[in-house]
Order: sequence, then C-alpha cells, then structure tokens
Amino acid sequence: MQDPHSIGLVVPQSARFEAPLVLRSGAVLENYDLVYETYGEPNEDKSNAVLICHALSGNHHVAGHHSENPKSAGWWNNMVGPGKPINTNRFFVIGVNNLGGCHGSTGPASINSKTGAPFGANFPVVTVDDWVESQARLADHLGIEQFAAVVGGSLGGMQALQWAISHPLRVRHVVAIASAPNLTVQNIAFNDVARQAILTDPDFHGGNFYAHDVVPKRGLRLARMLGHITYLSDDSMAKKFGRGLKKGSYNFGYDVEFEIESYLRYQGDKFASQFDANTYLLMTKALDYFDPAHAHDGDLARAFGSAKSDFLVVSFTSDWRFSPARSREIVKALLDNELNVSHTEITSSYGHDSFLMVDEHYHAVVRAYMENIGK
Amino acid sequence: MQDPHSIGLVVPQSARFEAPLVLRSGAVLENYDLVYETYGEPNEDKSNAVLICHALSGNHHVAGHHSENPKSAGWWNNMVGPGKPINTNRFFVIGVNNLGGCHGSTGPASINSKTGAPFGANFPVVTVDDWVESQARLADHLGIEQFAAVVGGSLGGMQALQWAISHPLRVRHVVAIASAPNLTVQNIAFNDVARQAILTDPDFHGGNFYAHDVVPKRGLRLARMLGHITYLSDDSMAKKFGRGLKKGSYNFGYDVEFEIESYLRYQGDKFASQFDANTYLLMTKALDYFDPAHAHDGDLARAFGSAKSDFLVVSFTSDWRFSPARSREIVKALLDNELNVSHTEITSSYGHDSFLMVDEHYHAVVRAYMENIGK
Repeated sequence: MQDPHSIGLVVPQSARFEAPLVLRSGAVLENYDLVYETYGEPNEDKSNAVLICHALSGNHHVAGHHSENPKSAGWWNNMVGPGKPINTNRFFVIGVNNLGGCHGSTGPASINSKTGAPFGANFPVVTVDDWVESQARLADHLGIEQFAAVVGGSLGGMQALQWAISHPLRVRHVVAIASAPNLTVQNIAFNDVARQAILTDPDFHGGNFYAHDVVPKRGLRLARMLGHITYLSDDSMAKKFGRGLKKGSYNFGYDVEFEIESYLRYQGDKFASQFDANTYLLMTKALDYFDPAHAHDGDLARAFGSAKSDFLVVSFTSDWRFSPARSREIVKALLDNELNVSHTEITSSYGHDSFLMVDEHYHAVVRAYMENIGK
Repeated sequence: MQDPHSIGLVVPQSARFEAPLVLRSGAVLENYDLVYETYGEPNEDKSNAVLICHALSGNHHVAGHHSENPKSAGWWNNMVGPGKPINTNRFFVIGVNNLGGCHGSTGPASINSKTGAPFGANFPVVTVDDWVESQARLADHLGIEQFAAVVGGSLGGMQALQWAISHPLRVRHVVAIASAPNLTVQNIAFNDVARQAILTDPDFHGGNFYAHDVVPKRGLRLARMLGHITYLSDDSMAKKFGRGLKKGSYNFGYDVEFEIESYLRYQGDKFASQFDANTYLLMTKALDYFDPAHAHDGDLARAFGSAKSDFLVVSFTSDWRFSPARSREIVKALLDNELNVSHTEITSSYGHDSFLMVDEHYHAVVRAYMENIGK
C-alpha cells in the first residue's frame, strides 16, 4: 500500500536560459540549463510556491521517488510531502539543482558550446547571490512572481537569506535552518583542506580530468570523509560508534581497526564514485564567499536593510559547524531591522546533519510556521 | 649576551640496545637505537632525573640549541632550562626521540639489518606502552632507577600516564598536560582521514617510498593541515586570521584567498618536507590504541590500580581535541585510587597547542609543582 504522505513518483524537468548571466566574479555564462522538480499544485497566481534550496551535496530531487529507482527518496522526503511539515497539499514546492552542480544543471562537466568540450576548470566560480539570480530566472520561467517561502538548510539557508536581501518583494517568508551569516575561519580551513585534497590529486589534471577519462577519486574521498566528521557531533559519533572495533580486537595495522574508520571510508568511497570533483570545489567556494555583511563594513544588520520577509531561523545545539550562536547573529541582525522573526534552538545530538533528520520538535516548529503562512 | 635562562648548546647522544624488544603487537624489534639529549646534572643517585615525553611531531630536542643552527631552539625551550618551570639547575632532564620516530631513533626510514634496506612498511606498529618499555631501558642505560618525574603534553602526557601504570616504582611524579585517557571517536576519525591521505598518495608506494626516491608529500601535507586545525581553537584562529583576505579582495579562484589558507598550506608544505610519512602514521596509531581502561572492561580507575606516583593534571579550556572533560576523567580515576592529584584547568584561547605556549598561570602551576618535588 502506498504511503499516503508520499509524493510518489516524480519526474525531473529542465529549463533552458539563453540570456547571459553575469556572475559576481565578472565572468559570464552565455546560456545554461537548470534541472528542477515540482511537488503539489500551483494556485491561480502561484502565490503558494515554495523554493527549496539545497546544500553542498544536495540537488533538485527533494522529495518523492524516481521511477527507475524505488530507493531514490529525495533528500528531504521526511520534510516535504502531503501532510508533511512543508505540506504539498497546500504548497507548490520546487527543488532546483544549483548552477555548477552535477545532477543535470549546467556545471563543470557540461559541454561548453564554445569549445565543444566539458567546461572543467573553465567553469566560473559561482556564489550564493549568483544562484539566487538563476533561481529568480527559474521563477520567471515558471510564472512565479512571489514565493510564499524560500527554505533551506546549511548552504541552502544561506541562499534563503540571500533571497531576502536580493529580492525582498519576491519572497514573503524565509526559513533558514542550521545556517550562518558567513563561515568561521575554522570552517574555511576545513574547506581548504578538502579542496587541497582534490586539487593536488594527480588525477585532477587541473580540473580537466574528463579529457583523461579519470576522476580524482582519492581527493574527493578525503574531502567527503573530512566533511562528514564536521557534519556529525562528537557525541553522536560516540553514541553510534564509540571506540568500537571492526573485528573485535586490535590488529596493529593500517586496515580498518575502529568501526568509525569503516564508516568514513565507505561514505568517502560512495561519494567519490557519484559526485563531480569540480562541483565539490565550487560548492565549498560558494560557502567561503557568502558574507552579506562584507559589503557593509561587517555590519550584518545593514546587510539585511532591504529585507521585507518574515523569517524562521532554526539551529541545533550540537551543531559545531554552524553553531546556534551563528543563528543568533542572524536573528539579532533581523530584529535590528524590526523584521518579524521566529527563532528556535532545537536540542539535538546529531550535529549539523540534524537539519536532515526527523526530530519531533524540529518538524513541529517548521510545520507550525508553514501552516501559518498566508492565513 | 647569552640568555641566563638558556641551556645553551646541546649535543644529541645515542644509545644502542641489543636485547630484542617484544612489542604489544607481538612483533619483535631485534635491536634499536634511541637518540636523546640531557640537560642539567644528575645528583649522586640520579633521583633528580626527569623524563620529557614528546607528542606526535616532537622529538628528543626539548631545550637548548644545536651548534649548527642558532635558530634550533628545542620544542619546549620555554619550559625547560635554568630557572625555568622545569628547572635544570635542580633536575637532570632527558628528552628522547621515540621508537619509530624520524629524528635519529630507529624508525621506518632506518636500515633493517636483516634486509639491508629501510624498514618502510615493515616497521612494526608501536604503542604507548612499547615506548614506555624502551624509555625504561634507556633509564637502565643511564643508571636511573627512579625518575623524579615523567612529564608530557598530549601524546606525551599519555606516555607519562602509562609510566605510572607500567612502572609504578620507577616514577615519583607524573605530569600529564593536555592529555586524555584515550582518543574520542572524533579524534580517531580525524586521524583516519590524515592516514588515508598518506596511504592513498601514489608516492607512498605502500610505505616503501624510500626505494622509489620520492616522499608522499601531498598526503603528509594534507595530514598536517588537518592536524593543525584541530590543534588550534576556533577562537584563536578567528583572532589571528579572522576572514582576512590575502590580497585584500576576492579573486574568485582556487589560489589562496583567505589568510588562513596561506598559513595552513605553508605549515603543510614545511612539515611535508621535513617529516617522515611512516612515522606520522605510526604516531597517529599509537594515539588511537592508547586506552589503558580497555584491558579493564573500560574501568579507568582499575587501570590506574597499580599506580603509586603523585600526579599533576593540566588542561586548557579551549582545547577541543583533548578537552578539559577528558582530564577530569583522569583525575577522577586517580582519586578513586586515593592517589595524590593536583589538577588545574587553565583558561586559554590557544586550543590544544596551549601546552606549548608561554602562559603565566600555566607556567606558574608547573613551576610550583616541580619546585615541591623532593622537598
């Protein structure tokens, strides 16, 4: 029997954009494709549209399943669906693969029409505001004048915040979960190690590995292993793995000894065989560059001076990557602008990854906020 | 004018051990050399001897300078010297390069007398208790029956603790700084990423890179960059670098953008050109395996059941690698055995590296403890 709260089968769609996009770096994308999915039905003026922005390794497949793979639940299938916190019985929900991605939207592995070869290292660096511009064009394409809400976690939350700054009249509500007003220097440092792992992999070939028929698996694997540690809390790792041994006793060698090693290597291997290394680099740079206060002498309140949306800001106690203190910075800056802000700090032991998990309190908070929209 | 608190020039010495050493893994080292330095003078019965144990990247050169390089101050030159907290006017201080090291003691780069080639991958995994055994043999060699104190920070602190367990009658005082009763699973995870960076570097050649006349610099560089992040606190990095840009403005590329990237890459490059990759692997494994409670069903108090020394346990508030909570576990286990324990938690913003820094309170605590020894 089908789950009554499941969206069921979904089919990705694609939109082509022929107007050149001038990026923050000054580089120009002459044309590009964006792959997206939609869930639920638009109302007459499409004012019930909700945009879901994805994080580092996410994509447009937010909810439901693809027919070719019954195990292919979207990455936020627990949050988006009929009767779920982001209720597709009410909202017309859109997931989009960001520009520079590796799941169908134009990215480093796409063919550059000018050269007939993959962009590779020539794909320009894209920033959070570039993504918001490309998402606004997708909204135009879909006939959406104003989103009921733009929602995202982590890097996705940064995009949601940027929407409020770049297009204040096109978004009524912003939901920023496990996000931050910028990366800490420690976060940048972790990103740099991950990038150096990829950039120095001999199979990277300066980003043009496609032409050599190899992928820099070693580097991408290390990047993912490292990232994974920072997504979890020390406590959640301790509860899940502790100092548990894979084979029950010490082997005094370099094969897997502790269970955590087995888990991390498996996660790294899996990711390295699926994800594009150039996209990983791009995503980490977008994280590093996001800093709306930078153009306002570090004054985050002024950065939100143009914002008109209402906000829900959610953080998780055990998130040491984007800590609750960073969410409080956002809240303070929004309140300084006398904006309507709901703010919840969820007690959770799952670290940064909490935003992807089912937690009763967390889901209740998002559900209540979304239910109140437009009432 | 010479610094009156400096030890001045020191000359490393070497001792050869011909009795086979059976390691915890069951492997046997048929013979080996240990390189060491001494500072100060022994009293008649050498009861004023103090052993300093080094951490992951340390060595025997604890204090003073080498004649060939006036900039070659030992790694704990601020702590050890005439009139310094570990006062060489009173104590006969010994620094030793651990077995498996790369600064003169027998290690993976040494020639295996059985094969005439470097040990490489065949050098056995050594553990903290193996090191303590080899250090005990060095004490025999030097005619030291009982140390006034065994002192160490981080991995060095683990050795100091193991001395109290393995040779309770040969050490009167144990000073364990920024240490832990074992690694957390998060620490093991970071170590595993570092090891995987080295092990998967094509220049590693299964540990036998010496024969190929290359070194796995890329992997060792990544390992060091990652390690460095975990030695510092988020706060100290924020104070030192913040989100400061190397060239003042964004360049939207993969060259150094933020100052922290420049710093980490420099540290990584420097280390990779000096340190042996196999030694790095060994040291991280010794960290992973240290867990005296493991043989006592996880009961740390029972692990210290044989201990007779007095203890000084010091931790630093901003140390998230070996947090103050871990030091409190040690203190509790020692108190459960009704041992004499002094315990100080130093307020410091420098993270795990605090144990190497000059901090007035920290140095005063060590000085006071050492001054009371033997009085």
